Amino acid sequence: MKSNPIKKKLSRGQPTLGTWLSLGNLHAARVLARSGFDWITLDIEHSPFDWREIASVVASIADADCVPLLRVPDNSHTMIKWALDAGAYGVIVPMIDTVEQAQAAISAAKYPPRGTRSAGGGMHNLNFSCPTEEYYRRANDEVVVILQTESPQGVANAEQIYAVPGCDAVFIGPNDLRFQMRSPTGDFPTAEEHEQMIQRVVEAGRATSTPVGIHVMTPEQANARIAEGMQFIAISSDLGMLANRAAEIVKTLGIQSDDDIARY
Amino acid sequence: MKSNPIKKKLSRGQPTLGTWLSLGNLHAARVLARSGFDWITLDIEHSPFDWREIASVVASIADADCVPLLRVPDNSHTMIKWALDAGAYGVIVPMIDTVEQAQAAISAAKYPPRGTRSAGGGMHNLNFSCPTEEYYRRANDEVVVILQTESPQGVANAEQIYAVPGCDAVFIGPNDLRFQMRSPTGDFPTAEEHEQMIQRVVEAGRATSTPVGIHVMTPEQANARIAEGMQFIAISSDLGMLANRAAEIVKTLGIQSDDDIARY
Amino acid sequence: MKSNPIKKKLSRGQPTLGTWLSLGNLHAARVLARSGFDWITLDIEHSPFDWREIASVVASIADADCVPLLRVPDNSHTMIKWALDAGAYGVIVPMIDTVEQAQAAISAAKYPPRGTRSAGGGMHNLNFSCPTEEYYRRANDEVVVILQTESPQGVANAEQIYAVPGCDAVFIGPNDLRFQMRSPTGDFPTAEEHEQMIQRVVEAGRATSTPVGIHVMTPEQANARIAEGMQFIAISSDLGMLANRAAEIVKTLGIQSDDDIARY
Amino acid sequence: MKSNPIKKKLSRGQPTLGTWLSLGNLHAARVLARSGFDWITLDIEHSPFDWREIASVVASIADADCVPLLRVPDNSHTMIKWALDAGAYGVIVPMIDTVEQAQAAISAAKYPPRGTRSAGGGMHNLNFSCPTEEYYRRANDEVVVILQTESPQGVANAEQIYAVPGCDAVFIGPNDLRFQMRSPTGDFPTAEEHEQMIQRVVEAGRATSTPVGIHVMTPEQANARIAEGMQFIAISSDLGMLANRAAEIVKTLGIQSDDDIARY
Amino acid sequence: MKSNPIKKKLSRGQPTLGTWLSLGNLHAARVLARSGFDWITLDIEHSPFDWREIASVVASIADADCVPLLRVPDNSHTMIKWALDAGAYGVIVPMIDTVEQAQAAISAAKYPPRGTRSAGGGMHNLNFSCPTEEYYRRANDEVVVILQTESPQGVANAEQIYAVPGCDAVFIGPNDLRFQMRSPTGDFPTAEEHEQMIQRVVEAGRATSTPVGIHVMTPEQANARIAEGMQFIAISSDLGMLANRAAEIVKTLGIQSDDDIARY
Amino acid sequence: MKSNPIKKKLSRGQPTLGTWLSLGNLHAARVLARSGFDWITLDIEHSPFDWREIASVVASIADADCVPLLRVPDNSHTMIKWALDAGAYGVIVPMIDTVEQAQAAISAAKYPPRGTRSAGGGMHNLNFSCPTEEYYRRANDEVVVILQTESPQGVANAEQIYAVPGCDAVFIGPNDLRFQMRSPTGDFPTAEEHEQMIQRVVEAGRATSTPVGIHVMTPEQANARIAEGMQFIAISSDLGMLANRAAEIVKTLGIQSDDDIARY
Ligand SMILES: [Mg+2]
Ligand SMILES: [Mg+2]
Ligand SMILES: [Mg+2]
Ligand SMILES: [Mg+2]
Ligand SMILES: [Mg+2]
Ligand SMILES: [Mg+2]
Repeated sequence: MKSNPIKKKLSRGQPTLGTWLSLGNLHAARVLARSGFDWITLDIEHSPFDWREIASVVASIADADCVPLLRVPDNSHTMIKWALDAGAYGVIVPMIDTVEQAQAAISAAKYPPRGTRSAGGGMHNLNFSCPTEEYYRRANDEVVVILQTESPQGVANAEQIYAVPGCDAVFIGPNDLRFQMRSPTGDFPTAEEHEQMIQRVVEAGRATSTPVGIHVMTPEQANARIAEGMQFIAISSDLGMLANRAAEIVKTLGIQSDDDIARY
Repeated sequence: MKSNPIKKKLSRGQPTLGTWLSLGNLHAARVLARSGFDWITLDIEHSPFDWREIASVVASIADADCVPLLRVPDNSHTMIKWALDAGAYGVIVPMIDTVEQAQAAISAAKYPPRGTRSAGGGMHNLNFSCPTEEYYRRANDEVVVILQTESPQGVANAEQIYAVPGCDAVFIGPNDLRFQMRSPTGDFPTAEEHEQMIQRVVEAGRATSTPVGIHVMTPEQANARIAEGMQFIAISSDLGMLANRAAEIVKTLGIQSDDDIARY
Repeated sequence: MKSNPIKKKLSRGQPTLGTWLSLGNLHAARVLARSGFDWITLDIEHSPFDWREIASVVASIADADCVPLLRVPDNSHTMIKWALDAGAYGVIVPMIDTVEQAQAAISAAKYPPRGTRSAGGGMHNLNFSCPTEEYYRRANDEVVVILQTESPQGVANAEQIYAVPGCDAVFIGPNDLRFQMRSPTGDFPTAEEHEQMIQRVVEAGRATSTPVGIHVMTPEQANARIAEGMQFIAISSDLGMLANRAAEIVKTLGIQSDDDIARY
Repeated sequence: MKSNPIKKKLSRGQPTLGTWLSLGNLHAARVLARSGFDWITLDIEHSPFDWREIASVVASIADADCVPLLRVPDNSHTMIKWALDAGAYGVIVPMIDTVEQAQAAISAAKYPPRGTRSAGGGMHNLNFSCPTEEYYRRANDEVVVILQTESPQGVANAEQIYAVPGCDAVFIGPNDLRFQMRSPTGDFPTAEEHEQMIQRVVEAGRATSTPVGIHVMTPEQANARIAEGMQFIAISSDLGMLANRAAEIVKTLGIQSDDDIARY
Repeated sequence: MKSNPIKKKLSRGQPTLGTWLSLGNLHAARVLARSGFDWITLDIEHSPFDWREIASVVASIADADCVPLLRVPDNSHTMIKWALDAGAYGVIVPMIDTVEQAQAAISAAKYPPRGTRSAGGGMHNLNFSCPTEEYYRRANDEVVVILQTESPQGVANAEQIYAVPGCDAVFIGPNDLRFQMRSPTGDFPTAEEHEQMIQRVVEAGRATSTPVGIHVMTPEQANARIAEGMQFIAISSDLGMLANRAAEIVKTLGIQSDDDIARY
Repeated sequence: MKSNPIKKKLSRGQPTLGTWLSLGNLHAARVLARSGFDWITLDIEHSPFDWREIASVVASIADADCVPLLRVPDNSHTMIKWALDAGAYGVIVPMIDTVEQAQAAISAAKYPPRGTRSAGGGMHNLNFSCPTEEYYRRANDEVVVILQTESPQGVANAEQIYAVPGCDAVFIGPNDLRFQMRSPTGDFPTAEEHEQMIQRVVEAGRATSTPVGIHVMTPEQANARIAEGMQFIAISSDLGMLANRAAEIVKTLGIQSDDDIARY
């Protein structure tokens, strides 16, 4: 059975770099999986795919010896079961604000006795290049569960959440965090307030020896976050890379349209 | 950003007319979206689609300058998140019987601080012809939430439900309402009892200044409901139109088969 | 093995009635296959489908005990092989203007020694409810080949074409025939000239004892053509039925948009 | 309306034999549906499909006059609604450990007043060859609900669970049961302990006159379970049959690779 | 009916700028169609798509008021029929080396009497926002046919090919041209020889008043070709933009893998 | 760039063993690609797939370090271009009866100057784990072309056909050969006559030093053919394996249905 390299890197304190898939396109996934990233996350929280193609993309990333992760839409038992049975090497679970939510997510991702994951399926083991029985034996150790901290409530509960056994890393959703910090009248936090909240997550990670990560737009931002000690950095996305480069091209050509609908 | 024309029409007391998609076919959707209806609802409660094609159909309706709505299968945060991130201009939420159910649906459809919708995705703004940031700023005002009243319990709680901020309209599911009115021994309500229940919804709508709608089979029924003051009228469906016309044809030809399996 | 009922009806001089699928939607196909039509033709000449779904639609029609036909885009060996291996009960081949074109189409549809169809596949027999070997033995007798006459050249060669062994019926494409009759400066034929050309096909069919058919829009037109002796009548289509009924509805409601894009 | 033959067989005390679909392939489903099995279950708990293809596979099994069942991922109202609206003749619901879980599953599968299933959709009746109204009238009697017992807690509550009205049969998940029996330190139960737990289900079934079933790998095991009185036997799966036969072939050829990744 | 803006620009001597789709992804197509390009070409010569999704992508580009083109795999009647019936505003036809090949391509793209295109289908007119009859009337004038010159033989015959009525523009395939210029022993042409061959196309275009285009990788190259008088410039592709930006990112991060599989 | 192992084995006189895919299912393909076979052929001559999924299956086989081949429906330039651009390691071309047909197939599979394959696409190189430029440089040497001999005419021309440079192996289609040997009145050849024809192919292969292969149903038959010197042996198929095992199961259970529709 292949081991999960990001599990090792995270536990050794090393940074890992990955990107996001919002297009759900097999060809784009295959190219990015060979580009040098440690892991690739297919986002099924905010992008509309079907499970057949989710499994295809996940398989293609694993077969390229990269690490396929799925960002699920919620912490339900069914979503996490489907994600892992499709052969993902781990799940990223959004909006974990309480210990109970964290426990539910981790339980769904672990076979008994550590959790309540149901035993079945014949794809997960293909992605780990091993027989089913070996997968059952080792999956609890190789599959990662990454919990998102993306609200003030989540930050307030951070240390307790990160201390739940099986929380392999935490991932800051900067966009949702910003929205969750809006005042009752709708004011957004300042950049400083936003960053302070982020730093509280970094501190909680340090206090609990939990690797912390975040989504950034550029490699420069990635390097800055790594310098702060972050270990799980998502840089841009398939769609973002495409749109960024298209924007450069049309700008150079002077043909950019008036509005910038597609500027992400 | 394009504004949502049915939001305006509903708030001005004007009727809106739409139809239902049960086939999930892009070509049929494109044709109907150019036929003059105010809105088109893809029904993912009772018809089996995948999310990739749901998003395609929704996009094609928006791109035709018609209003795409999704009838979701339940009021869960994930279903409403997926529906709106796929770019729907609104959701129709079935079987809202209590204030709590209504609040959950509306919360899932609104970005903070009004609700708990998660910020992300890159399709919604394409359907509204605007950059993501503009979508985030205005989505709470443009996206509609339409709650279904389709049980005696829902009727009993109607005024409180409709008074929940963010309930843009209510939609009667006449079929489910009839089933929910069955006696413990299975007797169906009489047509009069059924209609009285419908009229209680109309009254609750009036009392709370909430637009009311219903699903009808013919344009004559639509006009009758509009005359009663209803504002959100669904007429037939892609499948219904097809089956009705096929039934007329085979009847005229005298080749109708013995059973009438496909008479909806 | 199920026999092909339209083969029998055509050879006995009886009329057969069918319709056209332009949406390629499985649900619509299943409904129409239970509506009383003798046969249903999926049109892959003018509508864009993939072969996976073509086979699904064909299978569902056969399983409903209706007759699935495919209108192929041309008379090539590959297209006819794919159509029949997908389990169609017959092919409708467009624009057959010469004896050579007819022979190529028929050869591709028949196993040796009558033709050059390649032996293989495991779907055709499922649709005929029999083992592969029985299918191989009887397919040449059950599968129909229907050649389209839709140009003046095709009409000029009609008797020789229809006399080619294996031409089970001919089908007039009235639309293409009208376009092919345009003068060098682009003038369309008059309705009378068009109808005279159609009647020449009827006569050639009579002279060669070949069943003749045509595509019509209404059951009244169908009955008129049957009265003329035609035997293979296509009435409207899934898309046509849908669009017709939608047009009636919006007209009754008075909401028809200015243009009539979707009026087929 | 076609009646559900396995409902009759189960109530008469007869055994029924079926198999599992893990590939979700329409062609494989059509072949197996004609192979003599009483029923075919498409597993959407552990295999990743989209709902469009789920409905296609279910339809093809029904149209072959076999019984299509769906193993859903959980007992939620939405999953069971989607399964039955896609035209399944019944659902197999995993991990039913309590009376409340059983009641929720059964309620979701029955129209009022027996349950809370929502009335709508136009596919279910096609699969039962009847008009929608007839389906609504008889579905509560024809659709089966099969609850899985696959944990010690489920066994402990077995008699109360099976006594819930509408529990048509119970199905042992031997694999999950084994995992759920692991000790806190991860030791698996012995084969004897595992079998004893299975026999407790058999006894609870007998005590409550509820048909019992299990998943087995070989026909010999199937016959042994039938001899014990079991009535709902799943034998292997599409994937299992394929992998077994491939393993025999490569072994005979002497080309088996070192590892045995695909040995299920 | 919408007119084809690139037809006008080309005839007025203005440059047009577009890009290529190799991913066949609807979301990527929608973003690029709003980025300011004059046209977007979906390449079905070198990338594997199905016709259902080809039509979806084409529709989405047209609905965004951009111009959708299809690069077909050959000049066959069927491929060009399918491309235009799917609603493309034009076709790019590869490897046109002779006048006869050019005539076949153009004939397939024009309705009689100018050509042999078959009349049918209900999608093309949706993409041009008009009823079918209007599409039939004006399609010959709005649809563009762009012929590829990509071999020495094509260059040798360039003036005669470009003089064929209906040749709206020519497009140089620089990659194929380079391969076709290989010596019998496999030597590639020098950059100078390659460029000289390209300039011969430019001259033939000038001599016949035919707009000329080419595929380039960067906006700088695009501007250089425009300065030479070229009018139909394809810049990069969805895949190329994605891969370029990914390469920049991983290079900046210092994580680039040893090989550069995905460097296009 | 990965080299093509079957090219080496064939040139060294070693046997290669593979199987056939008729289901077109990614999961089944992934399992079989890990089962020990040298190569896996997806049959797109007799089974209906779309090109998107063809490319997915091909990629998954390559990524499993097995050799993906495509049996194309004919020897046209477009089909062979699509097959190889989808990343197949080779094509199997049916019904090659003449030297001209062989030359056309081989030319389509080779880049200039050896052939006329068009340069483009970004998938083929992913399957060979190399940059595009390296693929272009080496593809002519790594891609295999296997020509089918399956008619008396093909046998008569065998030595000339096999002597065409670039014919890497020949593959007997025993089923088509038997059909092509039918007498004018439809009589099939005897088993002896059939086998004699096969042996003539073996001899022509020996005379021209061309590896010969055939499709067999069992490993015993495979070993017998290897003993005769054959080197390219296809054993059964995904569908055949599934149906064989299902037949064994239902026979053992005594539930086999009367007919044997699904006995391939
Ligand atoms: Mg988030
Ligand atoms: Mg309802
Ligand atoms: Mg025609
Ligand atoms: Mg289980
Ligand atoms: Mg080229
Ligand atoms: Mg063959």
